Amino acid sequence: MAQPKYLTGDKAGIEEFIDKFDAFLFDCDGVLWSGDHLFPKVPEVLEMLRSRGKQLVFVTNNSTKSRADYKKKFDKLGIPAKVDEVFGSSYSAAIYISRILSLPPPKNKVFVLGESGIEAELESENVPYVGGTDPSLRRDITPEDFAAIADGSMLDDDVGVVLSGLDFHVNYLKLAIAFAYLRRGAQFLATNTDSTLPMAHAFFPGAGSVGAPLVKAIGREALALGKPSQAMMDAIEGKFKVDREKTCMVGDRLNTDIQFGIEGKLGGTLMVCTGVNSKEDILGEGKPVVPAAYVDSLGDLMG
Amino acid sequence: MAQPKYLTGDKAGIEEFIDKFDAFLFDCDGVLWSGDHLFPKVPEVLEMLRSRGKQLVFVTNNSTKSRADYKKKFDKLGIPAKVDEVFGSSYSAAIYISRILSLPPPKNKVFVLGESGIEAELESENVPYVGGTDPSLRRDITPEDFAAIADGSMLDDDVGVVLSGLDFHVNYLKLAIAFAYLRRGAQFLATNTDSTLPMAHAFFPGAGSVGAPLVKAIGREALALGKPSQAMMDAIEGKFKVDREKTCMVGDRLNTDIQFGIEGKLGGTLMVCTGVNSKEDILGEGKPVVPAAYVDSLGDLMG
Repeated sequence: MAQPKYLTGDKAGIEEFIDKFDAFLFDCDGVLWSGDHLFPKVPEVLEMLRSRGKQLVFVTNNSTKSRADYKKKFDKLGIPAKVDEVFGSSYSAAIYISRILSLPPPKNKVFVLGESGIEAELESENVPYVGGTDPSLRRDITPEDFAAIADGSMLDDDVGVVLSGLDFHVNYLKLAIAFAYLRRGAQFLATNTDSTLPMAHAFFPGAGSVGAPLVKAIGREALALGKPSQAMMDAIEGKFKVDREKTCMVGDRLNTDIQFGIEGKLGGTLMVCTGVNSKEDILGEGKPVVPAAYVDSLGDLMG
Repeated sequence: MAQPKYLTGDKAGIEEFIDKFDAFLFDCDGVLWSGDHLFPKVPEVLEMLRSRGKQLVFVTNNSTKSRADYKKKFDKLGIPAKVDEVFGSSYSAAIYISRILSLPPPKNKVFVLGESGIEAELESENVPYVGGTDPSLRRDITPEDFAAIADGSMLDDDVGVVLSGLDFHVNYLKLAIAFAYLRRGAQFLATNTDSTLPMAHAFFPGAGSVGAPLVKAIGREALALGKPSQAMMDAIEGKFKVDREKTCMVGDRLNTDIQFGIEGKLGGTLMVCTGVNSKEDILGEGKPVVPAAYVDSLGDLMG
């Protein structure tokens, strides 16, 4: 397998690389920022790409935020972006449920294990839901709950989908309810299955870990609608009309971002070393997922 | 493979089966009771076995209760039992940590993801711990927590073990802390890895599901100290001096109880159909785990 090209400090190589593409898909966490820390020269790089006529799409697996929430985060960090340039796994899941799964109402209700970002995107597609940020579920499970979940009196007969995402308020009660719906035959979807979440220069449990109790309990994986699921790539291609040959995926994580680009048969993939994976994971023989090129950090594209 | 013998209604078969053994190891949930519902004739069966000189051991993977808690549950349901006859996965884990792992103090502290049963058994073996039922961890994670976990200021440098069990108060904060300890190199143990918990005639997420986020996030399994781990069988044999050839494991779950007995080379295994698995799971060809005999419910042993 070809070794990835190292572009940091290689002015000519950078020029040549950028010239190959009309569109850049960016992962956000670990690429543009880590938590609330903006990486150096990120606005400049995006500005430079825009000035050269490139289409930018911000593709994120972070399901806690809606596209509108993401826009606020971009504004706060001083990164110029439009709501329509943001494509999140919550939005991807909402589109899948409303347009592809198309369950007949009223049996199309979704039980959400996740935060308000998922709720906002479901609302944008007019998909009814329960759970999510419902304050009545943010408490300890009681003996009465066990009985009411077991006999179904606490469950909503219209729930046909369990959608699992990153939930900072996960608890046993919500897991027990979600598991009961799955046992009753609900479809099992996940916004994404990232095992970890880069934050504050460290790693925390990701959406895939938060939803892991459901996978373990029911004994099967969820259908994931985030990277590297190609359902998300198809939706991006449909919405932004990008030419895959002339599109580059930029990310920090090999098994989501880079794999997403490779499986999507994009013209290129670029890894940054400011997130989950490092050079050691891509250099040498026998590495399972390798980008076309890599830089130490996104700002290095300024040359 | 030999088909299991059906003993319900077979008076002679029951006599012959019971005569073969000096000791009976009983799983509890799904065998003696379900939640707070005692199955019919359970006290009578235990009394009958005792009267015939059989050693009884109650082997449970439920890590939320200590042996003393279990004794209370037996008393409440009217089942005659002694504390010393109870052998739980929490006790098994405590013994493993104190006597086999034997980390040098003060680096032998345990971060507990679980309830007071685990804490009580760790105390009985003088193992220091943090986490568990600590009320200061029963809350939402804050931005300050992310920072303090990331920079280590919220972590205890003496923690050398993460012990994961069934925690009805699991939350993101505790998962994030446990994951941080694992990333720092803590040993990863689990009281047990049952995916589900039978309760109120239904199923809820079990200890293996509650701990699944840690497995997913760190990318490796915990060492389990409950059934079917043979570490537990070795401890039972050591404590009760049972002759494995003359010992029978009684349980409702094939992949924990029955497998535990088969792998432990016990003289016999008996399945009851009042819990997780049913006849369909053991009859016919190609079933991976099959008991020597089965009854519809434990009370059927009264003939």
